[in-house]
Amino acid sequence: MSKIPYKIYLSEDELPTQWMNIRPFMKELPEPMLNPATGKPCTKEDLLPVFCEDLVDQELNVTDKYFDIPGEILDFYKMYRPSPLIRAYTLEKALGTPAKIYYKFEGTNTSGSHKLNSAAAQVYYAKKQGLTHLTTETGAGQWGTALSMACAFYDMQLKVFMVKVSAQQKPHRKAVIETYGGLVIPSPSDTTEIGRKILENNPGTGGSLGCAISEAIEVATHTPDCRYVLGSVLNHVLMHQTVIGLETKKACEKYDINPDIIIGCAGGGSNLGGLITPFMADKISGKNDIHFIAVEPASCPSLTRGKFAYDFGDTGKTTPLMKMYTLGSGFIPSANHAGGLRYHGMNSVLSKLYDDGYFEARSVEQTKVFEAATYFAKCEGTLPAPESSHAIRVAMDEAIKCKETGEAKTILFGLTGTGYFDMTAYQAYHNKTMTDYIPTDEDLEKGFATLPDLCALK
Amino acid sequence: MSKIPYKIYLSEDELPTQWMNIRPFMKELPEPMLNPATGKPCTKEDLLPVFCEDLVDQELNVTDKYFDIPGEILDFYKMYRPSPLIRAYTLEKALGTPAKIYYKFEGTNTSGSHKLNSAAAQVYYAKKQGLTHLTTETGAGQWGTALSMACAFYDMQLKVFMVKVSAQQKPHRKAVIETYGGLVIPSPSDTTEIGRKILENNPGTGGSLGCAISEAIEVATHTPDCRYVLGSVLNHVLMHQTVIGLETKKACEKYDINPDIIIGCAGGGSNLGGLITPFMADKISGKNDIHFIAVEPASCPSLTRGKFAYDFGDTGKTTPLMKMYTLGSGFIPSANHAGGLRYHGMNSVLSKLYDDGYFEARSVEQTKVFEAATYFAKCEGTLPAPESSHAIRVAMDEAIKCKETGEAKTILFGLTGTGYFDMTAYQAYHNKTMTDYIPTDEDLEKGFATLPDLCALK
Repeated sequence: MSKIPYKIYLSEDELPTQWMNIRPFMKELPEPMLNPATGKPCTKEDLLPVFCEDLVDQELNVTDKYFDIPGEILDFYKMYRPSPLIRAYTLEKALGTPAKIYYKFEGTNTSGSHKLNSAAAQVYYAKKQGLTHLTTETGAGQWGTALSMACAFYDMQLKVFMVKVSAQQKPHRKAVIETYGGLVIPSPSDTTEIGRKILENNPGTGGSLGCAISEAIEVATHTPDCRYVLGSVLNHVLMHQTVIGLETKKACEKYDINPDIIIGCAGGGSNLGGLITPFMADKISGKNDIHFIAVEPASCPSLTRGKFAYDFGDTGKTTPLMKMYTLGSGFIPSANHAGGLRYHGMNSVLSKLYDDGYFEARSVEQTKVFEAATYFAKCEGTLPAPESSHAIRVAMDEAIKCKETGEAKTILFGLTGTGYFDMTAYQAYHNKTMTDYIPTDEDLEKGFATLPDLCALK
Repeated sequence: MSKIPYKIYLSEDELPTQWMNIRPFMKELPEPMLNPATGKPCTKEDLLPVFCEDLVDQELNVTDKYFDIPGEILDFYKMYRPSPLIRAYTLEKALGTPAKIYYKFEGTNTSGSHKLNSAAAQVYYAKKQGLTHLTTETGAGQWGTALSMACAFYDMQLKVFMVKVSAQQKPHRKAVIETYGGLVIPSPSDTTEIGRKILENNPGTGGSLGCAISEAIEVATHTPDCRYVLGSVLNHVLMHQTVIGLETKKACEKYDINPDIIIGCAGGGSNLGGLITPFMADKISGKNDIHFIAVEPASCPSLTRGKFAYDFGDTGKTTPLMKMYTLGSGFIPSANHAGGLRYHGMNSVLSKLYDDGYFEARSVEQTKVFEAATYFAKCEGTLPAPESSHAIRVAMDEAIKCKETGEAKTILFGLTGTGYFDMTAYQAYHNKTMTDYIPTDEDLEKGFATLPDLCALK
């Protein structure tokens, strides 16, 4: 065993050359996607008008444990990966905890987050298929930024439907996407049928991820050589993110680090899933007993307060149905919620694993999140994204518990990105104008009322 | 020789443990700082009311070739260093050049720039001296951000005088500094005597680095246990930045990379000096024949159009006099200039080396700089700071020349930081509202008119 440095950097030779598909490792598979028109499991043909072919194959594959990462994607990854696994020595000292805290830091690329891992892959496959245009949605802007970077690299045209309230609050996020050549359209917009319909029914709405997805899909299916790509929720996206977990596991093995707890923030689930996949596969087969914790915002609590049900992925109800923890596709988090993690549902594999008791979920309020973010920034130097700071909050809570019990647990969390474009929220926290919001049961019931009636579909 | 990876990361064990003082390597020393009250070389005692003692010792030392980096500073460095030396494979391919392009990337820490290298050192020495407060100035905001991070780490109180126009244009830069606990005061302010005087004489002024320095020094000299720290220009700051050049040289030697050209952007000179110092020492002794190029904005051309003369470091004419290339302490770059590199003078050692013909200087217009920045971002993923993009511009120009001549030169440049907080400028470039400005000879004459009359001082 080597001495553990502050930052563990694997070499390029140690970069994983395969992604890991968690499904073949599961004792029971998640229920399949359903075609809402037939009520039957989605076929490849159902999905091809919307998604790239290779990605559909990955999405539907429940048997192959590993997928080779194409050389071109590996070359792209080498521009910014492997990412460092960092020992939070200063944070540990400041907390006075006997716990050892590590974080896998995905913010070292300019897109500023882990989203680039899937963006690089998805754009590569689109190019390979001979496509020329892509559409997508973005909320906080991390996914739109990452995708515009990848599209610049592969010379693809990109149209990004950006949740209107985010586009207004974050003009600089928009500017970054435009610098990389992406076209940003605040959503809902009058450029799509579904957008016009949403605007008619909800004049003055600030939009939501669900609306933006509907618009992006409409354009993708009505434009030649164009497909829609998504930054989270789907299984192939989660699989691309396993490069995070595979690197983390390799670094842990190299330096004999044995995590007792692994923590990730959870929106659509791709970063959490990507981080924990290789460890979870071992847990399923009894090789470890790691305590996994998903952390979500109290204002958008799909795992902790949602229903495990079939639901649409978008507000316009145009996507296949997925069995997932969901607040209903009509749920929109309250406007005071800063940053991402605002999706109404959760990746279906994670939903199944959660339902089967393989991990814990916690929800935290945003002032507590920004308190942790600021504390972390002062200790460790890195200014974390609000999303990532959900994981920091719980990592700190667990480290403080260790201080009380005297246990020297090893806590590992995913630091998915940086908060450079979230200074308005940081400033609100600093000025004490930031507020919390926990949806009432009545708020949630309104969301649940938008869940589809499966019987009516058939 | 090992295969050259995309990113060369030295290990923590390879982090330099000494800074390098270029002066003992020079054939002729630069002229000393003068005390404007006496016209005689500054003594240690002259400087102690303003600066920390260890930093004064470093500033005045012209004989010791190396200074040990204290363990505490090394520990801080290990949180984000060694920084990567990156091969710009994608940029080379896009340009179709036979040149090999490398960049030393200092933007991987949250402060987003190389400034942290000196901030970490300066705050450490202040703490060691038993001080509790520091003051400084910041223009584009990189230095203020870095210093606030270091002050958070060492638990020091910090007051940052931020050039007013920058504070207004970059509220998020201000928010970052505040997140790390620094107090930001737009300059000129009514909190200092010199600030009130400047406001009286120039109502409505947007301020300048020179004004902000005057205010910060006034507060430092009127507050108990407080000193002033500076982010560039001075020799000790440049010396702290030699960690960049020493890492670069070590990486080059490890992978048998032999730069023909080394390029750095030049404002006060600390990053350029830090990058080239170890290579320059070899050049002085005849061990290499590297072509060094300093790149400055056409709107603030201290090397290419300034005078080599004794001048004050600040607008209020309160600092010692330094023999340097200068536009006059009254020179203020035109308001359309985006980003940093707006200081009227240049580090005295670099000024001397330039005067002695050891390197070339070029000035570039900002639309050309942002053209290069955008091109680089699309190729290499990283969104560069406007300051750093001056070096990118010239690196690309040189690589294009190689394409024309067929020469496979090795070009190395310093990428000092990221442009996350410069999106307003990027947007102006994108929207074609960005303009260039080259000062007329008359503009420059007005600046030169503010140069001190040395005879009158004695």
